[in-house]
Amino acid sequence: MTDQKAPKSEQTRTLILETALRLFQERGFDKTTMRGIAKEAGVSVGNAYYYFESKEHLVQGFYDRIGAAHLAAVRPILDHETDLQKRLAGVLTSWLDIAAPYHEFASQFFKNAADPESPLSPFSPESEAARKTAIDMHREVLAGAKTKVPDELADVLPELMWLSQMGLVLYWVFDRSPDSEKTRKLAQRGAQLTTRGIILARFRVLRPLVREVHELFTDFLPGMAQTAVSRPGRKRASDPDAGPEEGPEVGP
Amino acid sequence: MTDQKAPKSEQTRTLILETALRLFQERGFDKTTMRGIAKEAGVSVGNAYYYFESKEHLVQGFYDRIGAAHLAAVRPILDHETDLQKRLAGVLTSWLDIAAPYHEFASQFFKNAADPESPLSPFSPESEAARKTAIDMHREVLAGAKTKVPDELADVLPELMWLSQMGLVLYWVFDRSPDSEKTRKLAQRGAQLTTRGIILARFRVLRPLVREVHELFTDFLPGMAQTAVSRPGRKRASDPDAGPEEGPEVGP
Repeated sequence: MTDQKAPKSEQTRTLILETALRLFQERGFDKTTMRGIAKEAGVSVGNAYYYFESKEHLVQGFYDRIGAAHLAAVRPILDHETDLQKRLAGVLTSWLDIAAPYHEFASQFFKNAADPESPLSPFSPESEAARKTAIDMHREVLAGAKTKVPDELADVLPELMWLSQMGLVLYWVFDRSPDSEKTRKLAQRGAQLTTRGIILARFRVLRPLVREVHELFTDFLPGMAQTAVSRPGRKRASDPDAGPEEGPEVGP
Repeated sequence: MTDQKAPKSEQTRTLILETALRLFQERGFDKTTMRGIAKEAGVSVGNAYYYFESKEHLVQGFYDRIGAAHLAAVRPILDHETDLQKRLAGVLTSWLDIAAPYHEFASQFFKNAADPESPLSPFSPESEAARKTAIDMHREVLAGAKTKVPDELADVLPELMWLSQMGLVLYWVFDRSPDSEKTRKLAQRGAQLTTRGIILARFRVLRPLVREVHELFTDFLPGMAQTAVSRPGRKRASDPDAGPEEGPEVGP
């Protein structure tokens, strides 16, 4: 409480959030109550509810916090690195650094977040702000790289990259190697594979498939459709039997 | 106990397995003990341990059972249908039919099975028999279809298809739509997308990427490496910048 710059309300909010995270870790997410959090933080129950409507909102506060810290950490990479694979690997590795202190909490908490219908899921409408920040980061990974991305895929690739990152997070939750070493290797390999895939996307024949994979995720994951950039008048992905030669543009 | 054909030991084994599944559902997996299962089944604890070394082995028994029922159910499709998309959709939908009675159990049980290091995970060494049966089924889906699969990918595609099926199972675990209707739609869409991807695999330029995706999964999922068909002397997937024209074979 020595930080003179943060207003009192911001300090109280932070205190409640940090207390909650500690209690989730100590008592488990399911057994922790808003009453218990308020008591431990030394604030009234009404005050706790003023800042966070529910336990679920506390988790959203946690997501937003991780997201903001991540955004700050990757700034040097996004501003100076131009190699696509290094930009992507940097973003993924940096997330693992930021999230490291919460590794134990994450595995305890996973069974709630894994349900796509849960407000705690990264795919839920409630997680939209955090999801949008993360997807925009992937958009910037692509925009600042030397490797050119076909216009036709510029809207769907950031979302697919974020989905792959969710796969990496799932792997990390269960990774028991020291310093999540295995997940770090997977991040490097994933960045390499994604970059190779993007280079292959210069062959037009592939693009309908990429769009279809994206459509499948947006159609079946709740919340994704809201976050997905609107593509007015987009056509369904076309016949995959088309030849590999440079033909007329498929889709908008 | 009226079935005259099944030997007594097989009947006891089935009784223990069915009792265990019922108790897992009623009491939860974590709270059910081998002692409790034996008591409820009316056998001695020693007898229960004779058939199943641990609770985890009971789950393996459950996997094997689901796998055998699935194999029997898909026989007509595998023997008579020649359209790749219909074969795959049939296999996926049929699994959903077989697993339907265990839907509630599956979501309760999921948090144990989601950990790739758990013996209950579909990726664990302990699940190898069930995994191998399921992968072989996908091999047969491909082998009996009119659509030709490049030799080069014949070893990796069945495993990738099984991995996609695990994604479908994950989706099903959390699906609350009546009769898992949403998962059924996803199975149809997934079968369509997989078929389109396989048709595109006739372009050689794509094949190294498919192999690399497969390598990534076998390198990072425990147990997968054992199940993956051995590819002696296989090379790393080659430069993705190679042209799309029919060139010399890449890899073995």
